[in-house]
Amino acid sequence: MLQNDLLIRAAKRQQVDRTPVWMMRQAGRYLPEYRAVREKTDFLTLCKTPELASEVTIQPVDIVGVDAAIIFSDILVVPEAMGMELVVEEGKGGPRFPKPLRSKADIDALVTDGAVERLRYVYDALKLTSRVLDGRVPLIGFAGAPWTLAAYAVEGRGAKDFAAVKTMMYNEPALLHTLLDKLAGVVSKYLVEQTRNGADIVQIFDTWAGIMSKDAFLTFSLPYITRIIREVKANSDVPVIVFARGATGALKEVAACGCDVVGLDWTVDLGEARENVGHRASLQGNLDPVALYSSPESIRAQVRSILTKFGSHPGHIFNLGHGILPDVPVEHAKAMVDAVKEISTELRKK
Amino acid sequence: MLQNDLLIRAAKRQQVDRTPVWMMRQAGRYLPEYRAVREKTDFLTLCKTPELASEVTIQPVDIVGVDAAIIFSDILVVPEAMGMELVVEEGKGGPRFPKPLRSKADIDALVTDGAVERLRYVYDALKLTSRVLDGRVPLIGFAGAPWTLAAYAVEGRGAKDFAAVKTMMYNEPALLHTLLDKLAGVVSKYLVEQTRNGADIVQIFDTWAGIMSKDAFLTFSLPYITRIIREVKANSDVPVIVFARGATGALKEVAACGCDVVGLDWTVDLGEARENVGHRASLQGNLDPVALYSSPESIRAQVRSILTKFGSHPGHIFNLGHGILPDVPVEHAKAMVDAVKEISTELRKK
Repeated sequence: MLQNDLLIRAAKRQQVDRTPVWMMRQAGRYLPEYRAVREKTDFLTLCKTPELASEVTIQPVDIVGVDAAIIFSDILVVPEAMGMELVVEEGKGGPRFPKPLRSKADIDALVTDGAVERLRYVYDALKLTSRVLDGRVPLIGFAGAPWTLAAYAVEGRGAKDFAAVKTMMYNEPALLHTLLDKLAGVVSKYLVEQTRNGADIVQIFDTWAGIMSKDAFLTFSLPYITRIIREVKANSDVPVIVFARGATGALKEVAACGCDVVGLDWTVDLGEARENVGHRASLQGNLDPVALYSSPESIRAQVRSILTKFGSHPGHIFNLGHGILPDVPVEHAKAMVDAVKEISTELRKK
Repeated sequence: MLQNDLLIRAAKRQQVDRTPVWMMRQAGRYLPEYRAVREKTDFLTLCKTPELASEVTIQPVDIVGVDAAIIFSDILVVPEAMGMELVVEEGKGGPRFPKPLRSKADIDALVTDGAVERLRYVYDALKLTSRVLDGRVPLIGFAGAPWTLAAYAVEGRGAKDFAAVKTMMYNEPALLHTLLDKLAGVVSKYLVEQTRNGADIVQIFDTWAGIMSKDAFLTFSLPYITRIIREVKANSDVPVIVFARGATGALKEVAACGCDVVGLDWTVDLGEARENVGHRASLQGNLDPVALYSSPESIRAQVRSILTKFGSHPGHIFNLGHGILPDVPVEHAKAMVDAVKEISTELRKK
């Protein structure tokens, strides 16, 4: 039983006394306690060692006071579990696949059998974290959307123009669909396993949703997200958040894909999104991550503006519009969390 | 008198026999003829030598068959003319300001007096190009929007999170407004001068419109664009294109700012944009620049899709959703231009 179930209630569009708040990448470098763990452990070992993953997962709950824990992991462990070598080097621009997928043979060689089982360390970390949290706050599981995983797998890393994956999309759409289909099969089972091992809610990250046309998003991304959600819903009753970053023109379609919550980046006007989405889904977001560099007074004013824009409807989860930046002062993150708690309580009393 | 006035007519929402087409950054590295000029001349010298600027400006008209020439220059020559040292090093990630603006003293030190006159080489290049073109196609002048110029000037270069300029925006909004005001004053006069020296139409590039919230765009960018357009319109009768890249949530507001044409990046659905904007403005765009890596057959199919989405209304200018990429095969660019000409003619006959 959850003692603080604000996140789950807000995801289901139920009344809450105040707006729940958490931050994408909240277990991260801005926390000295996280950096202390990372000094002794590289990134992937941290992901794969349940005791350590659990420790950093819970840190922001204790230190910053967020209303949820999100399991420490990375979306790219899925392609790794399908046979792709994954390399994370410190300070070298994020994780990468030294052998990106460029041909039918590369994609055929991806291993779906056993991939879900090879991610056992994630389920173990969830189980342990859930036990340690003991219902203090909900535990969030997550996975990358097939499109975003495909973009990384084909490019080999975060890219500027995404020329490789898009050229595949334009010239060989059937091949890209084969890859997306494989990824969606594994991600579906992966998320279902997460819900069986302690995840109270799951988020699908479509980080690269915004790099393509709306038509392309509706063809190469959203159908696979929809399929994953159908699988999750057929096997559990956890709510699903979809964060399709930059898919600003497709908010209505995302809200109708079967998810409970639509994540918004900071460029979207929350009031307008509320009008567009109506009662089909809750909304999550959407403070500019860079706003946390500004003064606590400025942060407070911006939190108030966002909460006021959303208004008194049920169904808002406060978050940043993208991950917290690594050099944000901890007291600024706290200022945001405290402001959400105070101001959303105050606004509900009016 | 223009022999090919398709661009001007489309900008004014007048009937045309086919859709005009040009490409942002069409005088660029993908052309062997451009690279031949650049082998002998560095980027800024090319910008500042009217004969050379004129030569590369006209190349794509001859080689690719576009319906307009856009004067070869860079948006950052404006802050340079206001006293900022500008450095462009080959292959080192774009132009940069070694001494970015970080304080009130830095901003106060910007020189507005004489800045417009120091850009004389641009007017000379326009005059010469206009004379050589002799009415074959319209000549496009351009400038950066104050927000985008401020972002470069404060960051020093293209940035990932734009932490410096956004922190100024959050913590010292009045200071940022001072900077934007100075830039808007110079840009207004700069564009008016361009119209007096051969520019048949001008485009305002707000490359970084999409990095902030809609509220911030409406506060820190659009009012300055509006002011510039008012100045241009008070002093000339040339149409104005506004390309606020990524400001997807503010299309209606952009269309109402006084411009004639709204430029669209490739993520926006052109049919939906048409519905949103109505008859307030023409639309320009919006093929994904990466699509030009794909086969001529794929390019042709995408051109047809975009033209069909826009439908038979007057007021469409075909373009890429951002600048052409430097390693696109010339024949692919030609395939796009040819496809626009043929298919838009064919669709009008139906």
